[in-house]
Amino acid sequence: VPARYHQIAETSPERLAALSDGIFAVAMTLLVLDLRVPAASVLHVQHPVWAAGALQSEHAVLHVLAGLAPHLLTYLMSFLTLGIFWTGQQTQLNTFTRNDRNITWIQLLFLLTVTFIPFSTALLSEYITYRAALVAYWLNLLLPGAALYLSVQYAARAKLIKDESAAEMRSVTVRRIVGYQVLYAISLLFCVVSTYLSITLIVLVQLNAAIQPPIRPLDRF
Amino acid sequence: VPARYHQIAETSPERLAALSDGIFAVAMTLLVLDLRVPAASVLHVQHPVWAAGALQSEHAVLHVLAGLAPHLLTYLMSFLTLGIFWTGQQTQLNTFTRNDRNITWIQLLFLLTVTFIPFSTALLSEYITYRAALVAYWLNLLLPGAALYLSVQYAARAKLIKDESAAEMRSVTVRRIVGYQVLYAISLLFCVVSTYLSITLIVLVQLNAAIQPPIRPLDRF
Amino acid sequence: VPARYHQIAETSPERLAALSDGIFAVAMTLLVLDLRVPAASVLHVQHPVWAAGALQSEHAVLHVLAGLAPHLLTYLMSFLTLGIFWTGQQTQLNTFTRNDRNITWIQLLFLLTVTFIPFSTALLSEYITYRAALVAYWLNLLLPGAALYLSVQYAARAKLIKDESAAEMRSVTVRRIVGYQVLYAISLLFCVVSTYLSITLIVLVQLNAAIQPPIRPLDRF
Amino acid sequence: VPARYHQIAETSPERLAALSDGIFAVAMTLLVLDLRVPAASVLHVQHPVWAAGALQSEHAVLHVLAGLAPHLLTYLMSFLTLGIFWTGQQTQLNTFTRNDRNITWIQLLFLLTVTFIPFSTALLSEYITYRAALVAYWLNLLLPGAALYLSVQYAARAKLIKDESAAEMRSVTVRRIVGYQVLYAISLLFCVVSTYLSITLIVLVQLNAAIQPPIRPLDRF
Repeated sequence: VPARYHQIAETSPERLAALSDGIFAVAMTLLVLDLRVPAASVLHVQHPVWAAGALQSEHAVLHVLAGLAPHLLTYLMSFLTLGIFWTGQQTQLNTFTRNDRNITWIQLLFLLTVTFIPFSTALLSEYITYRAALVAYWLNLLLPGAALYLSVQYAARAKLIKDESAAEMRSVTVRRIVGYQVLYAISLLFCVVSTYLSITLIVLVQLNAAIQPPIRPLDRF
Repeated sequence: VPARYHQIAETSPERLAALSDGIFAVAMTLLVLDLRVPAASVLHVQHPVWAAGALQSEHAVLHVLAGLAPHLLTYLMSFLTLGIFWTGQQTQLNTFTRNDRNITWIQLLFLLTVTFIPFSTALLSEYITYRAALVAYWLNLLLPGAALYLSVQYAARAKLIKDESAAEMRSVTVRRIVGYQVLYAISLLFCVVSTYLSITLIVLVQLNAAIQPPIRPLDRF
Repeated sequence: VPARYHQIAETSPERLAALSDGIFAVAMTLLVLDLRVPAASVLHVQHPVWAAGALQSEHAVLHVLAGLAPHLLTYLMSFLTLGIFWTGQQTQLNTFTRNDRNITWIQLLFLLTVTFIPFSTALLSEYITYRAALVAYWLNLLLPGAALYLSVQYAARAKLIKDESAAEMRSVTVRRIVGYQVLYAISLLFCVVSTYLSITLIVLVQLNAAIQPPIRPLDRF
Repeated sequence: VPARYHQIAETSPERLAALSDGIFAVAMTLLVLDLRVPAASVLHVQHPVWAAGALQSEHAVLHVLAGLAPHLLTYLMSFLTLGIFWTGQQTQLNTFTRNDRNITWIQLLFLLTVTFIPFSTALLSEYITYRAALVAYWLNLLLPGAALYLSVQYAARAKLIKDESAAEMRSVTVRRIVGYQVLYAISLLFCVVSTYLSITLIVLVQLNAAIQPPIRPLDRF
């Protein structure tokens, strides 16, 4: 019987990590492309009177920068999102002793959802007061979480995780993913009051995930 | 006799892998740049009546998002394409014990065709109903496959592959590449009926390549 | 007592380095996107008379290129900035024996400020005579420096640095960061005379940091 | 005497290679961004009559693609350029046993010139018949070569190269760089006849560098 391709196909955890680091690096840097610098000519059209004196021009530049504030808010939230998913994926990959084809494709699915983050960030910063844009952004928090959940469950079942850490890894990761996704979903619900309130709550949940303050109950997950 | 440059030029498989991972990471993330967020001002111009009430505005945003659907379809297909070629290249590079100048340039040729994928994706998503765009996209499935075919044939002849795996690697890889290219070509032919039908068939073939369901005859290659 | 996520979360110095290299690579290459090539059609509109003869057209192209000069100046300064912060971060990471969650997030904070450099560069090259744009750029010199300062202080306190080099590393790094930040701040003050003077001084300080000429007092830091 | 920063600053050859691979990967992929897909709406404006029938529309798409031909030519030349400099740098870095601050900055200078290649490519493809654009492109062949020349000369003098290969490496590399730069300069001179002739000659020289056919005198360098 001749060999089948999937029996000899090998994928290496190192190259999966390298591809992931590349995708996160590009996504993190592309976020900032959304902060477009208005052309100097626009400045003079928008502020013809101000352009008269030097000091007024300076104020005009500050005014233009202030107009970028909502973009900055979504930028910071998305950088936090990418950082959280990067460290989350890393914690998983570190415990895998080997890769198989399925885990590679589950991880590629995770990376697919990560590449969408610059898009959903740009969408939200353009339509920051619209609930439809916020729901689209929230889906981009839910889907990478779901992919990581799928990944840890599959890896435990397929015995890809180092034996001593498998059971603990699985339960801790699952609890963390489910816990934060519930908090994101609750934050989303507050958009019936205001999308800014929802965004603020999501950022606070994310800051907790990043900083993990040693205070109960903030260190639960 | 003085040494010649090509006698001392060494290329390392690790750096070829790093360059490849970088190119795939950038290409995967650039794909999403094609999903441009329409400016909020456009929304109000296109839907002056809807903009009257909050709920209608939400519908307008959803309407704008729905307009991105063909872009999303080609995005997913191209991510699959990049994932398949990334794992395919990886399977080859893993079996190489060393690099020589020729294999480096064959692999650079492969990477050249990979860098075109964001372009042919953008072309197809802009002209999704045009056969000329689909043929251009199909060429971008054929050429990386041809480069990988050339690579494995050269590597086997130049004894760059680990001895124990050389013969098997060659025959299995060649069979897989030829098999999938035939399926892509057959899928393309259905564009005389509809380009959407062709694209659907290509995506199904690719999903089979990715998931490799353990069902006959789907696991043949 | 069940384990907490942050007790098993591991981050690897290698992956932090890989993410950093990716971000610096993308940022360095994106800088050049700010050097937009004017469309050939613009040339003929701007220089209808010149377009008459071949030699005059050549002059028109040179004229267009000359218009990119302020962009080139800020490009070179930003490449220097990125090079200095890349080598600075590298010197730190090389002395760390392990990572913990906090240092990972401090370093992500550093990378966040690095991703802003293409934006503040584009801002400055568009508004090169405006002090507000220069202050924004200077903040982008101050913040990565502050993050690296925070990183070395935390790493020394949390015993992440190899024992033999901890004390020396800390004092030398702190002195260097503070020294250069003072020089940047002094350079900034000269913008009351001219923003070009400030930029020239910053570039000279940076060239000193890069070349480190073995001449007193230029080799102090 | 307290330690100076430059005495403890360490840079690692691995991270320099990783940064370089990232920059080359981004530059290679960015080249293709210059191949912009014209919007479908443009098609109908440009070819209102053709848009009447389906077959004519297909011809219109092909016509649009044909308009991208000069971009494709410069794209291929630039990919060759990047591939040649990537393998050239790799051959050097492979022979270095360690890095010092100076070689890091010489290599950063090399990478600075590499990041310009997407710009000079876009310039040339927009102004392909202009000698000024070709001279700018040629400078982008000269400067990376000069940086690699500087790098190998400094590395040999500072004893960064493995002993057994130092002398040979130096003479072979220097001969190759000088030889190809002379050929590029000669090719450039033919732009007094036609810029297309110059570009064709440069591509032929580069193909020789890449393929290195085992035929005299083509294998001289």
